Amino acid sequence: MDTTDTTAAVLGAGTAKPRELVEAALIEFFASRTEQVAELGDRYVTAVRELTEFVLRGGKRVRPAFAWTAWLGAGGDSTSDGAASIVRACSALELVQACALIHDDIIDASVTRRGFPTVHVAFADRHRSANWSGSSERFGESAAILLGDLALCWADDMLRESGIDAAAAARVSPVWSAMRTEVLGGQLLDIEAEAGLDESIDAAMRVNRYKTAAYTVERPLQIGAVLADAAPDLTAAYRSFGTDIGLAFQLRDDLLGVFGDPGVTGKPSGDDIREGKRTVLMAVGMKLADRDSPVSARTLRSTLGTIDLSEDRIADVRSILCDVGAVADVERRIEDLTDRALETLAESATEPGAAAQLRAMAIAATQRTY
Amino acid sequence: MDTTDTTAAVLGAGTAKPRELVEAALIEFFASRTEQVAELGDRYVTAVRELTEFVLRGGKRVRPAFAWTAWLGAGGDSTSDGAASIVRACSALELVQACALIHDDIIDASVTRRGFPTVHVAFADRHRSANWSGSSERFGESAAILLGDLALCWADDMLRESGIDAAAAARVSPVWSAMRTEVLGGQLLDIEAEAGLDESIDAAMRVNRYKTAAYTVERPLQIGAVLADAAPDLTAAYRSFGTDIGLAFQLRDDLLGVFGDPGVTGKPSGDDIREGKRTVLMAVGMKLADRDSPVSARTLRSTLGTIDLSEDRIADVRSILCDVGAVADVERRIEDLTDRALETLAESATEPGAAAQLRAMAIAATQRTY
Repeated sequence: MDTTDTTAAVLGAGTAKPRELVEAALIEFFASRTEQVAELGDRYVTAVRELTEFVLRGGKRVRPAFAWTAWLGAGGDSTSDGAASIVRACSALELVQACALIHDDIIDASVTRRGFPTVHVAFADRHRSANWSGSSERFGESAAILLGDLALCWADDMLRESGIDAAAAARVSPVWSAMRTEVLGGQLLDIEAEAGLDESIDAAMRVNRYKTAAYTVERPLQIGAVLADAAPDLTAAYRSFGTDIGLAFQLRDDLLGVFGDPGVTGKPSGDDIREGKRTVLMAVGMKLADRDSPVSARTLRSTLGTIDLSEDRIADVRSILCDVGAVADVERRIEDLTDRALETLAESATEPGAAAQLRAMAIAATQRTY
Repeated sequence: MDTTDTTAAVLGAGTAKPRELVEAALIEFFASRTEQVAELGDRYVTAVRELTEFVLRGGKRVRPAFAWTAWLGAGGDSTSDGAASIVRACSALELVQACALIHDDIIDASVTRRGFPTVHVAFADRHRSANWSGSSERFGESAAILLGDLALCWADDMLRESGIDAAAAARVSPVWSAMRTEVLGGQLLDIEAEAGLDESIDAAMRVNRYKTAAYTVERPLQIGAVLADAAPDLTAAYRSFGTDIGLAFQLRDDLLGVFGDPGVTGKPSGDDIREGKRTVLMAVGMKLADRDSPVSARTLRSTLGTIDLSEDRIADVRSILCDVGAVADVERRIEDLTDRALETLAESATEPGAAAQLRAMAIAATQRTY
């Protein structure tokens, strides 16, 4: 396949979903690196293939889809000459996300992702089967650190080479920069909260705000808005909508991390408990249990962060979180946030077609089962 | 101190060395992030302070100095209006380097850097003293992965916000991009060669080419050249000079890794042997020993990568490398590369003042004892 202008071709067909546009742009971008990577030899080609497959293998493309839809909602025209450049710029978010996932999987010592071995596990396996010297685990983590770095560098390259004009690039720059500084801060706060046992709902909400809401919805929407040179009112509405939906999205994730069906989520249920994640769900659970049921509170605290938990003990945690009212509380928060977000959107100047899309995406993100 | 325009002020004084210019630009850049970081709370401020101190604590600022001097050598005027922007753009290289060092130190499990604990060790120590839960080592590595990522993101921000004009930014973009893709490739090849026991001189030279020569000298010089919109001939001369000096620089590093005085280099001597680094020095040593002294060859192979080596066994390796002629061979390579580089420089159209500087830097880089 000639990939030099995949994005424009897929866009020109006029029927592609955001996800397909993003994947076309990613394929086009990876193809643009082929020559340079090959210059360093076959081993690099093989390693980069692992990254490429990881990125193209799946994912919901949530961030680029929000950015692209926000651009349309701010008057962007998908049939215009510059539209392919916008798709490319939005899709660069997916490479930031590739780095976040690859490095997060090292940090969380996760072994699978999207039904495949995580990158560090795949490289450790390769080391082991080749009977190389040294620790396979360390080799796997080292390679994954470097490939995550590469994804982060390529995210910038993809944005810079997207073809957007200098004025648009200047408008995106501070948002892109803030988003990355925030998400890395959110991740740092997350591991510190986990290690330092900060139990407060505030601490968990702050992590959600920066690690998820800003990074996944608010900033991508803002990127779409500034790419379209949207009016300040619309940008502000997007950001408010994005923060609310982003927080609700994360709260849904918290619930799925404990109650999700592994067959649907692709992750073992209860992993959040084993890993000791300081979620809002757990923070609310502990606060309510402290008030109403000290025995349950002790169970929650002794369970959280215990790697070796039986299904029965996970089931106990689930019961407690329901019984003390934590699940109902979190569901109510999701509902309130979503309601407010949808109201903000409805009152905004978003183009009707895109507004309907954003509405559907918001509902999908906050009411999903996966 | 008001840091909003530190770079221009230091530059305006007219007496600053490249290193001082770079540090002024870095201080100015870090100050520009203060507000955004503070928004995420004290914990992030503390973590970022660790990164800031790490970057400002020292280092030779080799890469920015090469880029800046190349710009001067291609006709750049340090008293011109745009000069402060050039300093900032060149100094962004130091943040790429901060990421490379922080992540490399995780990969190599190094405990000290520039006489201080490495970033991952510092964070592990903090975790330990605070009596936080979970593994201190894992916490330290996780925090260091994230702070390295932040440095990498900020490198881009610093370049993008440097103030260079759009045409200069467009000229720098492909060089900046190639440099990062190359250095990460070089690092990947390096850990693969180490793990896979690739003993060839070619493999070691290829790693040196991309991990060091391109990244440390060739590409920084090219960045300076394209910032000045230099003629193609001069850019080509810089690149040839840079590749040769960069390779010679790494070969000197190889020698210092085995023979260096720890009091001067700041690193335990012999660490390259313990870590099993596949250097050109060792590759040449093994090749020559295979030919002339099978017993010595066996000693080299059994020693390389053995963590727990006595000073006596390190001394044996040193003797062998001298006796088989590997040291002389590497010294000759350094001399040949340096001679050729200086000839290229002398024949180039580099401005005389900058040419003298580059010549001095080349000699310092390849004949240093630290």
